[in-house]
Amino acid sequence: MRGYIQVYTGNGKGKTTAAFGLALRAAGAGLKVYIGQFLKKGEYSELNSINRFKDLIKIEQFGGKRYIGQEIKEEDRKLAKKGFEKIKEIIFSGEYDVVILDEINVALYFKLIPENDLIDLIKNKPSDVELILTGRYASSRIIEIADLVTEMRKIKHYFSKGITARKGIER
Amino acid sequence: MRGYIQVYTGNGKGKTTAAFGLALRAAGAGLKVYIGQFLKKGEYSELNSINRFKDLIKIEQFGGKRYIGQEIKEEDRKLAKKGFEKIKEIIFSGEYDVVILDEINVALYFKLIPENDLIDLIKNKPSDVELILTGRYASSRIIEIADLVTEMRKIKHYFSKGITARKGIER
Repeated sequence: MRGYIQVYTGNGKGKTTAAFGLALRAAGAGLKVYIGQFLKKGEYSELNSINRFKDLIKIEQFGGKRYIGQEIKEEDRKLAKKGFEKIKEIIFSGEYDVVILDEINVALYFKLIPENDLIDLIKNKPSDVELILTGRYASSRIIEIADLVTEMRKIKHYFSKGITARKGIER
Repeated sequence: MRGYIQVYTGNGKGKTTAAFGLALRAAGAGLKVYIGQFLKKGEYSELNSINRFKDLIKIEQFGGKRYIGQEIKEEDRKLAKKGFEKIKEIIFSGEYDVVILDEINVALYFKLIPENDLIDLIKNKPSDVELILTGRYASSRIIEIADLVTEMRKIKHYFSKGITARKGIER
Protein backbone atom coordinates (compact mmCIF):
# COMPACT_ATOMS: atom_id res chain seq x y z
CA MET A 1 0.00 0.00 0.00
CA ARG A 2 1.32 3.42 -0.95
CA GLY A 3 2.09 5.52 2.13
CA TYR A 4 1.45 9.25 2.23
CA ILE A 5 2.52 12.20 4.34
CA GLN A 6 -0.07 13.68 6.67
CA VAL A 7 0.35 16.85 8.72
CA TYR A 8 -1.81 18.01 11.66
CA THR A 9 -0.97 21.54 12.71
CA GLY A 10 -2.58 24.72 14.06
CA ASN A 11 -3.31 26.17 17.49
CA GLY A 12 -6.41 24.07 18.24
CA LYS A 13 -6.91 20.96 20.32
CA GLY A 14 -6.85 17.54 18.66
CA LYS A 15 -3.56 17.17 16.79
CA THR A 16 -1.83 14.56 18.94
CA THR A 17 -5.23 13.11 19.79
CA ALA A 18 -6.02 12.60 16.10
CA ALA A 19 -2.62 10.93 15.63
CA PHE A 20 -3.43 8.50 18.44
CA GLY A 21 -6.81 7.88 16.83
CA LEU A 22 -5.00 7.06 13.59
CA ALA A 23 -2.74 4.65 15.47
CA LEU A 24 -5.83 2.97 16.91
CA ARG A 25 -7.45 2.63 13.47
CA ALA A 26 -4.24 1.33 11.88
CA ALA A 27 -3.77 -1.23 14.64
CA GLY A 28 -7.38 -2.31 14.13
CA ALA A 29 -6.42 -3.24 10.58
CA GLY A 30 -3.37 -5.14 11.80
CA LEU A 31 -0.90 -2.48 10.64
CA LYS A 32 2.24 -1.88 12.69
CA VAL A 33 2.60 1.60 14.16
CA TYR A 34 5.50 3.52 15.66
CA ILE A 35 4.90 6.69 17.65
CA GLY A 36 7.91 8.94 18.35
CA GLN A 37 7.06 11.85 20.65
CA PHE A 38 9.34 14.85 20.48
CA LEU A 39 9.56 17.39 23.34
CA LYS A 40 7.50 15.11 25.55
CA LYS A 41 8.31 12.96 28.51
CA GLY A 42 5.70 11.78 30.91
CA GLU A 43 2.93 9.50 31.88
CA TYR A 44 -0.01 10.44 29.70
CA SER A 45 -3.20 8.42 30.08
CA GLU A 46 -3.06 7.36 26.42
CA LEU A 47 0.16 5.46 27.15
CA ASN A 48 -1.79 3.08 29.40
CA SER A 49 -4.14 2.36 26.52
CA ILE A 50 -1.30 1.84 24.07
CA ASN A 51 -0.10 -0.87 26.46
CA ARG A 52 -2.97 -3.00 25.24
CA PHE A 53 -1.41 -2.91 21.75
CA LYS A 54 2.12 -4.04 22.54
CA ASP A 55 1.90 -6.38 19.56
CA LEU A 56 1.16 -3.57 17.11
CA ILE A 57 2.08 -0.15 18.51
CA LYS A 58 5.47 0.93 19.84
CA ILE A 59 5.89 4.32 21.47
CA GLU A 60 9.01 6.25 22.50
CA GLN A 61 9.54 9.73 23.92
CA PHE A 62 12.39 12.09 23.11
CA GLY A 63 11.75 14.98 25.45
CA GLY A 64 12.82 16.34 28.81
CA LYS A 65 10.40 16.55 31.68
CA ARG A 66 9.84 20.30 31.52
CA TYR A 67 7.95 22.06 28.77
CA ILE A 68 10.08 23.99 26.29
CA GLY A 69 9.24 27.65 26.25
CA GLN A 70 11.60 30.02 24.53
CA GLU A 71 14.57 28.78 26.51
CA ILE A 72 16.22 25.77 24.92
CA LYS A 73 18.86 23.81 26.74
CA GLU A 74 21.64 21.62 25.40
CA GLU A 75 19.76 18.66 26.86
CA ASP A 76 16.74 19.38 24.62
CA ARG A 77 18.95 19.45 21.53
CA LYS A 78 20.58 16.17 22.48
CA LEU A 79 17.24 14.46 23.06
CA ALA A 80 15.77 15.74 19.78
CA LYS A 81 18.88 14.71 17.86
CA LYS A 82 18.74 11.26 19.41
CA GLY A 83 15.05 11.08 18.51
CA PHE A 84 15.74 12.07 14.94
CA GLU A 85 18.38 9.36 14.54
CA LYS A 86 15.95 6.85 16.01
CA ILE A 87 13.05 7.71 13.72
CA LYS A 88 15.34 7.49 10.68
CA GLU A 89 16.19 3.95 11.73
CA ILE A 90 12.51 3.15 12.33
CA ILE A 91 11.33 4.56 8.99
CA PHE A 92 13.87 2.49 7.07
CA SER A 93 13.52 -0.62 9.24
CA GLY A 94 10.73 -2.11 7.13
CA GLU A 95 8.96 -3.01 10.36
CA TYR A 96 6.36 -0.26 10.53
CA ASP A 97 3.48 0.66 8.23
CA VAL A 98 2.64 3.92 10.00
CA VAL A 99 5.17 6.22 11.68
CA ILE A 100 3.85 9.09 13.80
CA LEU A 101 6.24 11.95 14.54
CA ASP A 102 4.40 13.71 17.33
CA GLU A 103 5.27 17.40 17.90
CA ILE A 104 8.05 17.24 15.32
CA ASN A 105 6.79 20.49 13.78
CA VAL A 106 7.53 22.21 17.09
CA ALA A 107 10.97 20.59 17.31
CA LEU A 108 11.64 22.02 13.86
CA TYR A 109 10.30 25.44 14.83
CA PHE A 110 12.73 25.56 17.77
CA LYS A 111 15.50 24.42 15.42
CA LEU A 112 16.17 21.29 17.45
CA ILE A 113 16.17 19.38 14.15
CA PRO A 114 17.58 20.84 10.91
CA GLU A 115 14.75 21.34 8.42
CA ASN A 116 16.83 20.06 5.49
CA ASP A 117 17.49 16.79 7.29
CA LEU A 118 13.80 16.22 7.92
CA ILE A 119 12.84 17.15 4.36
CA ASP A 120 15.48 14.71 3.04
CA LEU A 121 14.16 11.99 5.31
CA ILE A 122 10.58 12.54 4.14
CA LYS A 123 11.54 12.65 0.46
CA ASN A 124 13.53 9.44 0.72
CA LYS A 125 11.20 7.43 2.95
CA PRO A 126 10.17 3.98 1.73
CA SER A 127 7.09 4.43 -0.44
CA ASP A 128 4.91 2.10 1.64
CA VAL A 129 5.41 3.94 4.96
CA GLU A 130 2.63 6.34 6.02
CA LEU A 131 4.12 9.33 7.85
CA ILE A 132 2.13 11.50 10.28
CA LEU A 133 3.64 14.80 11.48
CA THR A 134 1.97 16.75 14.26
CA GLY A 135 2.50 20.02 16.11
CA ARG A 136 1.90 23.73 15.74
CA TYR A 137 3.97 25.85 13.42
CA ALA A 138 4.31 23.39 10.52
CA SER A 139 6.78 25.06 8.17
CA SER A 140 5.82 26.03 4.64
CA ARG A 141 8.27 23.49 3.23
CA ILE A 142 6.69 20.69 5.27
CA ILE A 143 3.22 21.76 4.11
CA GLU A 144 4.48 21.87 0.53
CA ILE A 145 5.83 18.32 0.68
CA ALA A 146 2.81 16.80 2.47
CA ASP A 147 -0.10 15.02 0.78
CA LEU A 148 -2.66 15.90 3.41
CA VAL A 149 -2.61 18.90 5.72
CA THR A 150 -5.24 19.69 8.34
CA GLU A 151 -5.11 22.86 10.40
CA MET A 152 -6.74 22.50 13.81
CA ARG A 153 -8.04 26.00 14.50
CA LYS A 154 -8.99 27.09 17.98
CA ILE A 155 -12.45 28.65 17.80
CA LYS A 156 -13.07 28.45 21.53
CA HIS A 157 -11.10 26.87 24.36
CA TYR A 158 -12.13 26.51 27.96
CA PHE A 159 -8.51 26.78 29.03
CA SER A 160 -9.03 30.50 28.51
CA LYS A 161 -11.39 30.19 31.47
CA GLY A 162 -8.50 28.94 33.59
CA ILE A 163 -9.09 25.20 33.72
CA THR A 164 -6.02 23.01 34.14
CA ALA A 165 -5.43 19.72 32.30
CA ARG A 166 -7.71 16.95 33.57
CA LYS A 167 -6.56 13.34 33.80
CA GLY A 168 -8.13 11.22 31.06
CA ILE A 169 -9.34 14.25 29.12
CA GLU A 170 -6.32 16.44 28.40
CA ARG A 171 -3.53 14.23 29.72
CA MET B 1 -14.72 15.95 37.79
CA ARG B 2 -16.61 18.68 35.93
CA GLY B 3 -17.45 17.62 32.40
CA TYR B 4 -17.37 20.05 29.49
CA ILE B 5 -18.70 20.22 25.96
CA GLN B 6 -16.21 19.79 23.14
CA VAL B 7 -16.93 20.25 19.45
CA TYR B 8 -14.78 19.09 16.50
CA THR B 9 -16.04 20.46 13.22
CA GLY B 10 -14.82 21.75 9.85
CA ASN B 11 -14.07 20.22 6.45
CA GLY B 12 -10.66 18.75 7.34
CA LYS B 13 -9.60 15.22 8.27
CA GLY B 14 -9.27 14.27 11.93
CA LYS B 15 -12.59 14.96 13.64
CA THR B 16 -13.79 11.41 14.29
CA THR B 17 -10.18 10.32 14.61
CA ALA B 18 -9.56 12.87 17.37
CA ALA B 19 -12.71 11.66 19.14
CA PHE B 20 -11.38 8.09 19.05
CA GLY B 21 -8.06 9.39 20.37
CA LEU B 22 -9.93 11.03 23.23
CA ALA B 23 -11.71 7.74 23.94
CA LEU B 24 -8.33 6.01 24.05
CA ARG B 25 -6.91 8.58 26.46
CA ALA B 26 -9.98 8.50 28.70
CA ALA B 27 -9.91 4.69 28.83
CA GLY B 28 -6.22 4.91 29.73
CA ALA B 29 -7.26 6.84 32.83
CA GLY B 30 -9.92 4.25 33.64
CA LEU B 31 -12.82 6.49 32.58
CA LYS B 32 -15.87 4.89 30.98
CA VAL B 33 -16.63 5.98 27.44
CA TYR B 34 -19.67 5.70 25.20
CA ILE B 35 -19.40 6.34 21.47
CA GLY B 36 -22.62 6.82 19.51
CA GLN B 37 -22.06 7.12 15.77
CA PHE B 38 -24.77 8.84 13.78
CA LEU B 39 -25.16 8.31 10.01
CA LYS B 40 -22.65 5.48 10.12
CA LYS B 41 -22.96 1.77 9.82
CA GLY B 42 -20.04 -0.41 8.97
CA GLU B 43 -16.91 -2.25 9.86
CA TYR B 44 -14.29 0.42 10.41
CA SER B 45 -10.84 -0.73 11.48
CA GLU B 46 -11.05 1.31 14.68
CA LEU B 47 -13.90 -0.90 15.84
CA ASN B 48 -11.50 -3.86 16.01
CA SER B 49 -9.26 -1.84 18.30
CA ILE B 50 -12.16 -0.73 20.47
CA ASN B 51 -12.82 -4.45 21.00
CA ARG B 52 -9.75 -4.50 23.23
CA PHE B 53 -11.53 -2.05 25.55
CA LYS B 54 -14.80 -3.87 26.11
CA ASP B 55 -14.44 -3.13 29.82
CA LEU B 56 -14.28 0.63 29.27
CA ILE B 57 -15.58 1.67 25.85
CA LYS B 58 -19.00 0.90 24.38
CA ILE B 59 -19.78 1.81 20.79
CA GLU B 60 -23.07 1.83 18.87
CA GLN B 61 -24.00 2.93 15.36
CA PHE B 62 -27.20 4.66 14.29
CA GLY B 63 -26.83 4.87 10.56
CA GLY B 64 -27.86 3.10 7.41
CA LYS B 65 -25.32 1.39 5.18
CA ARG B 66 -25.32 4.00 2.45
CA TYR B 67 -23.90 7.51 2.80
CA ILE B 68 -26.42 10.30 3.14
CA GLY B 69 -26.11 12.83 0.36
CA GLN B 70 -28.89 15.29 -0.12
CA GLU B 71 -31.51 12.59 -0.30
CA ILE B 72 -32.80 11.61 3.11
CA LYS B 73 -35.01 8.60 3.55
CA GLU B 74 -37.54 7.81 6.23
CA GLU B 75 -35.15 5.04 7.37
CA ASP B 76 -32.42 7.63 8.12
CA ARG B 77 -34.84 9.67 10.24
CA LYS B 78 -35.91 6.60 12.18
CA LEU B 79 -32.31 5.54 12.87
CA ALA B 80 -31.26 9.03 13.97
CA LYS B 81 -34.32 9.37 16.20
CA LYS B 82 -33.58 5.99 17.77
CA GLY B 83 -29.97 7.08 18.26
CA PHE B 84 -31.03 10.29 19.91
CA GLU B 85 -33.30 8.46 22.37
CA LYS B 86 -30.43 6.07 23.13
CA ILE B 87 -27.85 8.77 23.80
CA LYS B 88 -30.27 10.58 26.11
CA GLU B 89 -30.54 7.40 28.14
CA ILE B 90 -26.75 6.95 28.10
CA ILE B 91 -26.00 10.52 29.18
CA PHE B 92 -28.35 10.27 32.15
CA SER B 93 -27.41 6.69 33.04
CA GLY B 94 -24.59 7.70 35.37
CA GLU B 95 -22.50 4.94 33.80
CA TYR B 96 -20.31 6.97 31.45
CA ASP B 97 -17.74 9.70 32.09
CA VAL B 98 -17.26 10.59 28.43
CA VAL B 99 -19.98 10.47 25.77
CA ILE B 100 -18.96 10.92 22.14
CA LEU B 101 -21.68 11.88 19.65
CA ASP B 102 -19.92 11.19 16.40
CA GLU B 103 -21.28 13.02 13.32
CA ILE B 104 -24.16 14.45 15.31
CA ASN B 105 -23.49 17.89 13.80
CA VAL B 106 -24.24 16.42 10.38
CA ALA B 107 -27.39 14.70 11.67
CA LEU B 108 -28.48 18.13 12.92
CA TYR B 109 -27.58 19.79 9.63
CA PHE B 110 -29.79 17.33 7.75
CA LYS B 111 -32.55 17.97 10.34
CA LEU B 112 -32.60 14.32 11.38
CA ILE B 113 -32.56 15.55 14.98
CA PRO B 114 -34.37 18.72 16.10
CA GLU B 115 -31.83 21.32 17.20
CA ASN B 116 -33.89 22.40 20.21
CA ASP B 117 -33.95 18.84 21.53
CA LEU B 118 -30.17 18.51 21.30
CA ILE B 119 -29.59 21.92 22.90
CA ASP B 120 -31.94 20.97 25.75
CA LEU B 121 -30.10 17.68 26.23
CA ILE B 122 -26.72 19.43 26.36
CA LYS B 123 -27.94 22.12 28.75
CA ASN B 124 -29.41 19.57 31.12
CA LYS B 125 -26.67 16.95 31.00
CA PRO B 126 -25.24 15.76 34.34
CA SER B 127 -22.40 18.13 35.23
CA ASP B 128 -19.79 15.36 35.44
CA VAL B 129 -20.33 14.00 31.92
CA GLU B 130 -17.87 15.14 29.23
CA LEU B 131 -19.65 15.51 25.91
CA ILE B 132 -17.84 15.37 22.55
CA LEU B 133 -19.71 16.38 19.38
CA THR B 134 -18.16 15.80 15.97
CA GLY B 135 -19.02 16.45 12.35
CA ARG B 136 -19.00 19.20 9.76
CA TYR B 137 -21.47 22.03 9.85
CA ALA B 138 -21.66 22.55 13.63
CA SER B 139 -24.49 25.04 14.07
CA SER B 140 -23.91 28.46 15.61
CA ARG B 141 -26.06 27.51 18.60
CA ILE B 142 -23.97 24.41 19.24
CA ILE B 143 -20.78 26.44 18.99
CA GLU B 144 -22.27 29.04 21.33
CA ILE B 145 -23.10 26.44 23.99
CA ALA B 146 -19.77 24.55 23.75
CA ASP B 147 -16.74 25.08 26.02
CA LEU B 148 -14.16 24.04 23.45
CA VAL B 149 -14.50 24.23 19.69
CA THR B 150 -11.85 23.16 17.21
CA GLU B 151 -12.30 23.64 13.50
CA MET B 152 -10.41 21.10 11.40
CA ARG B 153 -9.60 23.01 8.24
CA LYS B 154 -8.56 21.26 5.07
CA ILE B 155 -5.39 22.88 3.80
CA LYS B 156 -4.52 20.03 1.45
CA HIS B 157 -6.05 16.62 0.90
CA TYR B 158 -4.74 13.82 -1.26
CA PHE B 159 -8.29 12.69 -1.93
CA SER B 160 -8.34 15.54 -4.42
CA LYS B 161 -5.77 13.45 -6.29
CA GLY B 162 -8.32 10.64 -6.56
CA ILE B 163 -7.17 8.22 -3.92
CA THR B 164 -9.85 6.06 -2.33
CA ALA B 165 -10.09 5.22 1.37
CA ARG B 166 -7.37 2.81 2.47
CA LYS B 167 -7.97 0.14 5.11
CA GLY B 168 -6.29 1.07 8.40
CA ILE B 169 -5.68 4.65 7.32
CA GLU B 170 -9.01 6.17 6.35
CA ARG B 171 -11.36 3.36 7.31
